[in-house]
Amino acid sequence: VAQRLEKFKTTIFTQMSMLAIKHGAINLGQGFPNFDGPEFVKEAAIEAIKAGKNQYARGYGVPDLNSAISERFKKDTGLVVDPEKEVTVTSGCTEAIAATMLGLINPGDEVIVFAPFYDSYEATLSMAGAKIKCITLRPPNFSVPLDELKSTISKNTRAVLINTPHNPTGKMFTREELNTIASLCIENDVLVFTDEVYDKLAFEMDHISMASLPGMYERTVTLNSLGKTFSLTGWKIGWAIAPPHLTWGVRQAHSFLTFATCTPMQHAAAAALRAPESYYEELKRDYSAKKAILVEGLKAVGFKVYPSSGTYFVVVDHTPFGQENDVAFCEYLITEVGVVAIPTSVFYLNPEDGKNLVRFTFCKDEGTLRSAVERMKEKL
Amino acid sequence: VAQRLEKFKTTIFTQMSMLAIKHGAINLGQGFPNFDGPEFVKEAAIEAIKAGKNQYARGYGVPDLNSAISERFKKDTGLVVDPEKEVTVTSGCTEAIAATMLGLINPGDEVIVFAPFYDSYEATLSMAGAKIKCITLRPPNFSVPLDELKSTISKNTRAVLINTPHNPTGKMFTREELNTIASLCIENDVLVFTDEVYDKLAFEMDHISMASLPGMYERTVTLNSLGKTFSLTGWKIGWAIAPPHLTWGVRQAHSFLTFATCTPMQHAAAAALRAPESYYEELKRDYSAKKAILVEGLKAVGFKVYPSSGTYFVVVDHTPFGQENDVAFCEYLITEVGVVAIPTSVFYLNPEDGKNLVRFTFCKDEGTLRSAVERMKEKL
Ligand SMILES: CSCCC(=O)C(=O)O
Ligand SMILES: CSCCC(=O)C(=O)O
Repeated sequence: VAQRLEKFKTTIFTQMSMLAIKHGAINLGQGFPNFDGPEFVKEAAIEAIKAGKNQYARGYGVPDLNSAISERFKKDTGLVVDPEKEVTVTSGCTEAIAATMLGLINPGDEVIVFAPFYDSYEATLSMAGAKIKCITLRPPNFSVPLDELKSTISKNTRAVLINTPHNPTGKMFTREELNTIASLCIENDVLVFTDEVYDKLAFEMDHISMASLPGMYERTVTLNSLGKTFSLTGWKIGWAIAPPHLTWGVRQAHSFLTFATCTPMQHAAAAALRAPESYYEELKRDYSAKKAILVEGLKAVGFKVYPSSGTYFVVVDHTPFGQENDVAFCEYLITEVGVVAIPTSVFYLNPEDGKNLVRFTFCKDEGTLRSAVERMKEKL
Repeated sequence: VAQRLEKFKTTIFTQMSMLAIKHGAINLGQGFPNFDGPEFVKEAAIEAIKAGKNQYARGYGVPDLNSAISERFKKDTGLVVDPEKEVTVTSGCTEAIAATMLGLINPGDEVIVFAPFYDSYEATLSMAGAKIKCITLRPPNFSVPLDELKSTISKNTRAVLINTPHNPTGKMFTREELNTIASLCIENDVLVFTDEVYDKLAFEMDHISMASLPGMYERTVTLNSLGKTFSLTGWKIGWAIAPPHLTWGVRQAHSFLTFATCTPMQHAAAAALRAPESYYEELKRDYSAKKAILVEGLKAVGFKVYPSSGTYFVVVDHTPFGQENDVAFCEYLITEVGVVAIPTSVFYLNPEDGKNLVRFTFCKDEGTLRSAVERMKEKL
């Protein structure tokens, strides 16, 4: 294996999903729904396949999807972007992240990330040869330590990577935090890469897109995807929205990472993104109910539950249950209790920082959530 | 844009397909069929979508597809590989190429490529920081200059990249060439990455997989895909087959480039790969007929046509028609004649080497091929 990837292990999501199957455990680990996506989107995919839309798509996206993405972005942020020059369709947000890093970061560039973070950030920054500067968000609120940020950002900083709503903590970046980050980035001529795949799962406050802040669009790459919003995580449709000079870099990397994305699914994604607002409202209502079940349940089990404002994840302190660390706790939970959670230490540059915390997802039907809670009540 | 991608332009395939649409030209450029894939494969995709197979696949492939790939590989090569440890499903062969380079090549490693080559080879080698050592295959036979190879391969060589049947020339590596490459690689402890996406389109001789040569499997990454064999280029299902120690590197890069590939299409791909042998025979028969139409037509138009033994491409010398170089000729062909071909200079490290050659594809229905020939007869 090449040095750039030597330190990485099999991603925790794969590991845990495989253990879940092996032990017949209830999987509240990897973030994929155990219910299906909407019929009208599946129908649109079937129509596209039947209609023979099965050959290479245009590299940066089928025109109708690029348009649908820019329409949705306008509704969400008020920003008007050119679907032809500022939108790039990718094979999931994971590819959009890789293309952004490889397309825009040079070896030695400093990039600031906030731990905990999705594991692909570190790996793709390593592929790009970036120097990672890590700032840790700490419980209970996982607030951005703005003074630490100020002293970390410098003329050598090429980009700040943010993720709001935030996986794994459910934290949402506040307007104050975003404003401070924005003014520091403008002052120091720094880019922002913002992963907003959970933007439609914002329960306690409104999601704010970094790109919508004054002066920020021109220095921001906004990353998003279909999977979480439409419960179709396996379709792997993502995108990057950025001004033309940044889109160029993303597209160049994308061209050579995958060239293009699955054509019929792109047509279906265009249909999905044109869903009426009621779709999004219902989604949020459904997930609020699921969240209540899981959060109340985890509290009743005896966990210290940290507040989650967005995403379909919630983080808890497992220390009341006496295991040495998060990995040991998750192993115990799988083998002795029959429930899968994700240890958070894998989301930190320094694993120690995550040793008290594990993540549960509530993207499962209510019966599954209740059964998981019951198992934990009984056996923990 | 990051330095690693600075020298690359919009890929020629995108450029030419867009010009084709703009000028209403007949597109014999980018290699995608203008006919649809088989009904039974499309049906399998539709079934998978309806059955709710729409969430994240296992990162390295849905188990049934990994099995189907290893079964097919056994039929093709006689080699028995472990679907769980030696097969990685990727988002098209382009991603398999990127994952192989980023997962196995370190900065400064020397990698030998044969020009002309598919443009992503150079770009992904650049992403990996490889030192490219290029050997040019020259008309009329595009044979491997074995002496030049011998003097180029050395203790610093990490890998040799081959592509057979070969895009753009249609050349197939002969057993003698493969044997010589193999013994040099064994002698110098060098890996082989072999792109065999056109292996089922071998007309004049049998395709030989590098991995099947004695002592080679353990040092070979075999790359292939669904698109060409099943006329479903837009589905973007590819794979890498390699011994476990090499698979590890490929999988690690893949995990962070796309994580997983479109789930329902993977189920359909498994069904496709279990097609009876008659499917493959018919495919070859169909393409032989198309090839004959195009090759005879191009000769009648007045081109010097180079022999193509495999792929759905054929390369011609355009100099009888008096344009300065391949790019000028292709522009003339689009705007004045209404036919799109691909200039080959983009496939060379030194564009000069391709200035007399352009590539046509015959992956189009017979009527389209005949019309293109008619236009050229009339207007060239
Ligand atoms: C490939 S896993 C993507 C992110 C996610 O779903 C998770 O964090 O569980
Ligand atoms: C993305 S284009 C892939 C290769 C091909 O089809 C071509 O060479 O035309």
